[in-house]
Amino acid sequence: DRKLFSATHDEIVNGLTTDVYFLRTLDILNELELADAEVIAEIFPRKPGIFVGLEEVLALLEGKNLEIDAISEGESFVEKDTVIRIKGKYSDFAIFETTILGMLASSSGWATAAREIKEACGDKFFLCFGARHVHPAVAPVMERAAVIGGAGGASCILAALLSGIKPSGTVPHSAMLIAGDTLTISQKYDEIASPDHNRIVLVDTFKDEVEEAIRVAKALDGKLYGIRLDTPSERGGVTAGLVKEMRAKLDLEGFKEVKIFVSGGLYPDKIKLLSEAGADSFGVGSYISAASPIDMTMDIKMVNGKAVAKRGRIPGMVDNPKLKRIRNFK
Amino acid sequence: DRKLFSATHDEIVNGLTTDVYFLRTLDILNELELADAEVIAEIFPRKPGIFVGLEEVLALLEGKNLEIDAISEGESFVEKDTVIRIKGKYSDFAIFETTILGMLASSSGWATAAREIKEACGDKFFLCFGARHVHPAVAPVMERAAVIGGAGGASCILAALLSGIKPSGTVPHSAMLIAGDTLTISQKYDEIASPDHNRIVLVDTFKDEVEEAIRVAKALDGKLYGIRLDTPSERGGVTAGLVKEMRAKLDLEGFKEVKIFVSGGLYPDKIKLLSEAGADSFGVGSYISAASPIDMTMDIKMVNGKAVAKRGRIPGMVDNPKLKRIRNFK
Amino acid sequence: DRKLFSATHDEIVNGLTTDVYFLRTLDILNELELADAEVIAEIFPRKPGIFVGLEEVLALLEGKNLEIDAISEGESFVEKDTVIRIKGKYSDFAIFETTILGMLASSSGWATAAREIKEACGDKFFLCFGARHVHPAVAPVMERAAVIGGAGGASCILAALLSGIKPSGTVPHSAMLIAGDTLTISQKYDEIASPDHNRIVLVDTFKDEVEEAIRVAKALDGKLYGIRLDTPSERGGVTAGLVKEMRAKLDLEGFKEVKIFVSGGLYPDKIKLLSEAGADSFGVGSYISAASPIDMTMDIKMVNGKAVAKRGRIPGMVDNPKLKRIRNFK
Amino acid sequence: DRKLFSATHDEIVNGLTTDVYFLRTLDILNELELADAEVIAEIFPRKPGIFVGLEEVLALLEGKNLEIDAISEGESFVEKDTVIRIKGKYSDFAIFETTILGMLASSSGWATAAREIKEACGDKFFLCFGARHVHPAVAPVMERAAVIGGAGGASCILAALLSGIKPSGTVPHSAMLIAGDTLTISQKYDEIASPDHNRIVLVDTFKDEVEEAIRVAKALDGKLYGIRLDTPSERGGVTAGLVKEMRAKLDLEGFKEVKIFVSGGLYPDKIKLLSEAGADSFGVGSYISAASPIDMTMDIKMVNGKAVAKRGRIPGMVDNPKLKRIRNFK
Amino acid sequence: DRKLFSATHDEIVNGLTTDVYFLRTLDILNELELADAEVIAEIFPRKPGIFVGLEEVLALLEGKNLEIDAISEGESFVEKDTVIRIKGKYSDFAIFETTILGMLASSSGWATAAREIKEACGDKFFLCFGARHVHPAVAPVMERAAVIGGAGGASCILAALLSGIKPSGTVPHSAMLIAGDTLTISQKYDEIASPDHNRIVLVDTFKDEVEEAIRVAKALDGKLYGIRLDTPSERGGVTAGLVKEMRAKLDLEGFKEVKIFVSGGLYPDKIKLLSEAGADSFGVGSYISAASPIDMTMDIKMVNGKAVAKRGRIPGMVDNPKLKRIRNFK
Amino acid sequence: DRKLFSATHDEIVNGLTTDVYFLRTLDILNELELADAEVIAEIFPRKPGIFVGLEEVLALLEGKNLEIDAISEGESFVEKDTVIRIKGKYSDFAIFETTILGMLASSSGWATAAREIKEACGDKFFLCFGARHVHPAVAPVMERAAVIGGAGGASCILAALLSGIKPSGTVPHSAMLIAGDTLTISQKYDEIASPDHNRIVLVDTFKDEVEEAIRVAKALDGKLYGIRLDTPSERGGVTAGLVKEMRAKLDLEGFKEVKIFVSGGLYPDKIKLLSEAGADSFGVGSYISAASPIDMTMDIKMVNGKAVAKRGRIPGMVDNPKLKRIRNFK
Ligand SMILES: [Zn+2]
Ligand SMILES: [Zn+2]
Ligand SMILES: [Zn+2]
Ligand SMILES: [Zn+2]
Ligand SMILES: [Zn+2]
Ligand SMILES: [Zn+2]
Ligand SMILES: [Zn+2]
Ligand SMILES: [Zn+2]
Ligand SMILES: [Zn+2]
Ligand SMILES: [Zn+2]
Ligand SMILES: [Zn+2]
Ligand SMILES: [Zn+2]
Repeated sequence: DRKLFSATHDEIVNGLTTDVYFLRTLDILNELELADAEVIAEIFPRKPGIFVGLEEVLALLEGKNLEIDAISEGESFVEKDTVIRIKGKYSDFAIFETTILGMLASSSGWATAAREIKEACGDKFFLCFGARHVHPAVAPVMERAAVIGGAGGASCILAALLSGIKPSGTVPHSAMLIAGDTLTISQKYDEIASPDHNRIVLVDTFKDEVEEAIRVAKALDGKLYGIRLDTPSERGGVTAGLVKEMRAKLDLEGFKEVKIFVSGGLYPDKIKLLSEAGADSFGVGSYISAASPIDMTMDIKMVNGKAVAKRGRIPGMVDNPKLKRIRNFK
Repeated sequence: DRKLFSATHDEIVNGLTTDVYFLRTLDILNELELADAEVIAEIFPRKPGIFVGLEEVLALLEGKNLEIDAISEGESFVEKDTVIRIKGKYSDFAIFETTILGMLASSSGWATAAREIKEACGDKFFLCFGARHVHPAVAPVMERAAVIGGAGGASCILAALLSGIKPSGTVPHSAMLIAGDTLTISQKYDEIASPDHNRIVLVDTFKDEVEEAIRVAKALDGKLYGIRLDTPSERGGVTAGLVKEMRAKLDLEGFKEVKIFVSGGLYPDKIKLLSEAGADSFGVGSYISAASPIDMTMDIKMVNGKAVAKRGRIPGMVDNPKLKRIRNFK
Repeated sequence: DRKLFSATHDEIVNGLTTDVYFLRTLDILNELELADAEVIAEIFPRKPGIFVGLEEVLALLEGKNLEIDAISEGESFVEKDTVIRIKGKYSDFAIFETTILGMLASSSGWATAAREIKEACGDKFFLCFGARHVHPAVAPVMERAAVIGGAGGASCILAALLSGIKPSGTVPHSAMLIAGDTLTISQKYDEIASPDHNRIVLVDTFKDEVEEAIRVAKALDGKLYGIRLDTPSERGGVTAGLVKEMRAKLDLEGFKEVKIFVSGGLYPDKIKLLSEAGADSFGVGSYISAASPIDMTMDIKMVNGKAVAKRGRIPGMVDNPKLKRIRNFK
Repeated sequence: DRKLFSATHDEIVNGLTTDVYFLRTLDILNELELADAEVIAEIFPRKPGIFVGLEEVLALLEGKNLEIDAISEGESFVEKDTVIRIKGKYSDFAIFETTILGMLASSSGWATAAREIKEACGDKFFLCFGARHVHPAVAPVMERAAVIGGAGGASCILAALLSGIKPSGTVPHSAMLIAGDTLTISQKYDEIASPDHNRIVLVDTFKDEVEEAIRVAKALDGKLYGIRLDTPSERGGVTAGLVKEMRAKLDLEGFKEVKIFVSGGLYPDKIKLLSEAGADSFGVGSYISAASPIDMTMDIKMVNGKAVAKRGRIPGMVDNPKLKRIRNFK
Repeated sequence: DRKLFSATHDEIVNGLTTDVYFLRTLDILNELELADAEVIAEIFPRKPGIFVGLEEVLALLEGKNLEIDAISEGESFVEKDTVIRIKGKYSDFAIFETTILGMLASSSGWATAAREIKEACGDKFFLCFGARHVHPAVAPVMERAAVIGGAGGASCILAALLSGIKPSGTVPHSAMLIAGDTLTISQKYDEIASPDHNRIVLVDTFKDEVEEAIRVAKALDGKLYGIRLDTPSERGGVTAGLVKEMRAKLDLEGFKEVKIFVSGGLYPDKIKLLSEAGADSFGVGSYISAASPIDMTMDIKMVNGKAVAKRGRIPGMVDNPKLKRIRNFK
Repeated sequence: DRKLFSATHDEIVNGLTTDVYFLRTLDILNELELADAEVIAEIFPRKPGIFVGLEEVLALLEGKNLEIDAISEGESFVEKDTVIRIKGKYSDFAIFETTILGMLASSSGWATAAREIKEACGDKFFLCFGARHVHPAVAPVMERAAVIGGAGGASCILAALLSGIKPSGTVPHSAMLIAGDTLTISQKYDEIASPDHNRIVLVDTFKDEVEEAIRVAKALDGKLYGIRLDTPSERGGVTAGLVKEMRAKLDLEGFKEVKIFVSGGLYPDKIKLLSEAGADSFGVGSYISAASPIDMTMDIKMVNGKAVAKRGRIPGMVDNPKLKRIRNFK
């Protein structure tokens, strides 16, 4: 008996996550001998963004005899662009409408936010830290979308696996709290990590961030790759002033090569500010995880060769030069 | 080989959706012989809302020897309220931090939006229509949360199953478009539906909504339960004026018992307006599906009986009278 | 005995619409032997606009021995520009101050609004529909001003006559309501109209606008010149989406030559939007009829050759290169 | 041949100010034998206000066999209130739709603004000075509406006549400018005015207002009723400070009974301010003359006993308890 | 020869800080034999506030034969209240107008700001720290005004002396910087301070504020009276979160009696916030020092028994029940 | 015994206006044998402005063996620019920190406001009238700063002396009020003033400004240099319209050479407006006197050759190319 409420892959592929009315629709159309009408359906978004989700949609429709055109994952779209066109018997994909639109909406929403972060970072690296803010069933979906949008890394193990990258992140506050001192943890971490691993230590748990950073840098004696600033909002958060001061004081102590990694409620404008102040890389969580899905709509545009449309819509296909033929009729 | 990117139940339960650094943390703490320290951790939200997600959290921690206190699903919380307190060996739940927080954040976010809708609806019924706007893996999670928040029904099959209710919804525009006339579909639908089923017909596909509603009402001859208005934004959306006019003209034609169900971009204030104008029930999609997760934080508050806290936080437990003991040490 | 309260031409010409204090003023000045002083008076506006009303002013002053300079009807002015300069005996025009200023204020206000509409329409035609929003005594004055401001037509019979154009407009909703069907009216209209008359039919009375337009177009079989969209605000008004859809669906049915005429609460920015969506011409009512009068002031600037001014004003004439001599002393 | 563009009473009564399409409508309905259908039409406003214009409407419909209900002139209405209901043969009033609506729209707009002024004045008197800001043909219509709205007097001769009051106002700046001194004019004015006339003198033409007021008060030796302040905007307009100072200095010189009358760009909030400072009465021009017409709509609600309505409107009559039977069928 | 530009007491008393035109005025009036006219002059403020400066004004006018009424130092006034009334020969005080008004304007401005701070502090103590933001010549004037407004202490030596209180303040950052450690300074300070002195130590110079506070508290072993938080804006300033955390962690370490004193850009609303979070007292600088002077005006209201006033003002005295006779004619 | 509360030059030079904690600091450092550490301290402002106050600072530090770098009086600075750098034994200047910062803050604040006025005046002259709005002890400090900022003159006698200019200003309203007529004062003034003195007369005391100006101009028969407009706010203040009218009417009467000087609540944008309208020069009071001090901070940057800084600041010197060596070690 069931313990988690997320849908399994089998449930998804078997149509259990669809809206119930599509089953009723097929019943009615069957009675009318219309369920196998040849239709062309187009999917379009309600606002601009970055397209992600196609791989899952194709997996879902695998084995159906459908002709599919689509734009590529990672490409940008504007409102009402055709992003996918499906041609075939209506009964072959009708019940997947809900599922397909949901796959595209969530992934494209996350990828779009990640792309905005990437634009603020410029050449600098950012890591997606948002797994803790979304249901675990979609954490890897989100982080894969973030990587397509521009994230250089992901902290969720499964996400990194799916994106073909090594998962990354730093030892959290809880380790420091249990050990009672940042240095104890740092030294043990250094001791057990492989030589080529980039040692990054979180320095805001107990002491002044700058004091702690210099203490750790001295203890690791040249092996410290970077420090992470994650000052909590109760203490004013990470400020541009703190980043500048950290850089100056690390330099003054001879640790010019130690990088500064920042995290904590970051959004594009704050990233620009901290980047100018000297931050080297960024950890971004809720800006990506809280991004709204980009709602998608599927419209039937042709029925047995005839252009159709409901009120409010234009009958017939809407061309988009970015569309590429993905799959032909078998 | 893998086709969908969402995590399976096994992957979640085995910790594959956690942030990688928790593994490293345990390695270090093990080396320091601190991994089994007895800790008390508390989870608190970053803004007010409705609490949902506990059932999944308990399933995840099943079999661990932990003492757990929590508030109930459906209860309200404010910023920084303790919503879950976990006591036990750190190694017994450390790697689930990411997973637990994500379960709570997503479900509580959706439930909170559903509660706002419920408050706007008053005694009237609303249906959650948002499955098409989120990844199918979490569509049932979302609709279950919406039902706890106040939704009277859900359109996603699996969600309805998990919530123990019958899935509902109306035949979509695509059926009308394939058949070419709303009446053809309505009559066949009436013919095949069981006698006790509530026949609701979508009336904005081809004709003026009022004209179509009267046409369908006459054709179904007393068996029409309600009509659904879903006028697209390109046509000005559903207005209070349209609802009033529909009611008046249905009444004039003798169809006083036919209900008016509305949908399309609804949010609390619009629901209030349409409700006053005479709408009987509502379908709500993106207001719920696009609700931001309510970010949750887990803080270690006691280590081996000693109150601790990182900078910015208060050491020791934060009491909350709503907490109930859920599970004792075995 | 009197039934209407508007002033007749005789009452206006005889000074009955003037402010009573001008009579008292002349009495006093007569007693002081100053009523026949030679004065120069200048009229200036309080804000920028388009100048209309001169023709009536000249008619009013006909037969008086005055020298008059003025800018032309249809020309633009800015605040404090001299628009009319009158030289002569004060007693020859004193009592007409109120009347003259009122003629200019109303007409210039309406013409200015019409010019703003014209600028939004570009090369497209617009009709002034505002007669129903102003007292019938000035409806022709308003529509004449609108034509000078840029309107291509007027619906008020007398206004069209005075502007030397054919009055235009479409059969109203009341005709459809009495007949009970748009088609009945359209066909009879087509039957009785002269062959060269442009048949334009209002299509939002009973049915979906697009459905009705195609029905009428088919019935008139090539003789339909255009359709008029006037969707009421209760139904969301005329939207850009409706205009686009109407164009697309008319084209698809082979009625590419049928024009789209729109009306209903139009203002410059909405006209631009609907024009881009494909509207061919416009009917504008309250934007013009509700335009505020542009208040005018008459100042005595010279008395018997001496520059004078009250406090707050500069003594002597204010030159304006746009002034042209209209009338010389006889 | 025509000199003024305003419509004469005959032109109005003969339907020349109507929209041309009503003639075409009657032609078509005649051909369909529907022109004499018995209809009920209702008129309603688009925003709240004070109802004026009924007298003219009744004059226009004199001699027609119609049943008419209406609210009274001077009564208030809110949006969509039925203000007039007409029952009879459509052909008997069809062509007057434009004319009737225009009469009501203009007069009700002006009366509504006057009522707002009245509410700011409280028990104090105000005079409508707006004749110079509207076309002379409607100046008496406006001032009559202002009197119904609350004005205590009117400056336009014909308006005063129609409202059954004596026209009022003060000698203007031009008289002072021609004479060169306010005192010369004041003394002659005093000399020729009848003993019971209230002598009010404008005191801001040449000198400091307070100095001039005292000079005039002394010269008229007890016969000065009041002074008028009309300081131009170039000099800061009439301020509360000036009114207070005027009152104090008149009192100090022993002229406690001399009233203070103010004018110049007054609007409700400024009137309240000046009234508290000691002003006794007010002259109001453009606030009334520039008031937007209150657009009215006429809808056919019954045709031969059957409730009808176009899309967006509710079929059948809308009751209003303020309606009174004005005229029965003959 | 002169090194500083501030006026000495002698220069002030001898009229050298007055506006030069008063000398010329007396020359002219002397020639006209009007310099010794008996006048009544009144001083009134331009906005509401707290009255301070009277003591200096009385010192300045010492020895002149004048009758003086005034409200008391520390009392509140509103705009245009008479705060001082002077009766006597004009030549006896004419040249002091500038000086008197300046004394009142500056002191009342500062006292008014201090009163606003006092209202935010409630029963808690605040210290005026603003000496460093104003010219040293007026630092004692400002701090005396602040004490009258509600400050419990002042840091400027001379100000404390003049206010009859002990000067207070804490050892500044520079001492810590020179010694290189907060503890070195704290211990020496404790060693040399008298036993009854309240030891307050600034804890944000080098280390985390909480860590440093506990370190100092332990070292002073019960003798620490309080700590001062003055976190710089570059580090987010003093936040409510920091105050709460400081209180909790001091308490946890057994230092419940150690007070928390905060400073740094404080203003009324921030004081309320920090006070609720647990701050015990406050140091306020620029909110007081940057307060605008409250401009004062002196008007001649009576000349030889006759009420006078310039344009814009009311002749004669303006009574104020708060006025008390301070000095009689000798 | 003391009558005024401002500090004397001796009190300032002897450190009595410093914050008391600097004395305690030196005691502690002496005990620690650190009081004579060689330090480098830098002073920087908190916002941009114009630098004034250096002369007083140098006077204060006269005789100390310090090396001093500074930017020049009258130069501009931006936030955090080093404006003064002091090198020497800490005990040689420690107690002057409060005093130095206060001198710079007040003077730079006033000079900055004066510079803004100067930029609005362009080539035209303005006089600082603010002495009456600040304590007399600093009136000369303020007016000296205003002159450095751009004022062409000062009305305070001592200020003019210190700035090496002749004090200026016009006879005030009180003279007119005592004499009862502007003309009496003007003629006597003209009689006793030296031939080369510029006669400027205030013309808004009793009569209309323009009337009075012409009356005075005629009476002084070519010797009137200018008139001053200072219309009170109760009468609408000085408007651009009044200035234009004054210019036009003076010119018309043949007084083209009479200048127009304006005063009364002037600020940069109003000065631009009045200047365009024809004003020749300006009197500015509270815009300068109410300018906030520009807070300055002194940071110890080097101690015995080692770069130091508190948290939030960067250790070591901050270069500024505008710095010039003012004084060397002796
Ligand atoms: Zn942190
Ligand atoms: Zn996060
Ligand atoms: Zn729809
Ligand atoms: Zn939706
Ligand atoms: Zn319509
Ligand atoms: Zn209209
Ligand atoms: Zn006037
Ligand atoms: Zn007016
Ligand atoms: Zn500090
Ligand atoms: Zn400060
Ligand atoms: Zn003045
Ligand atoms: Zn001033």
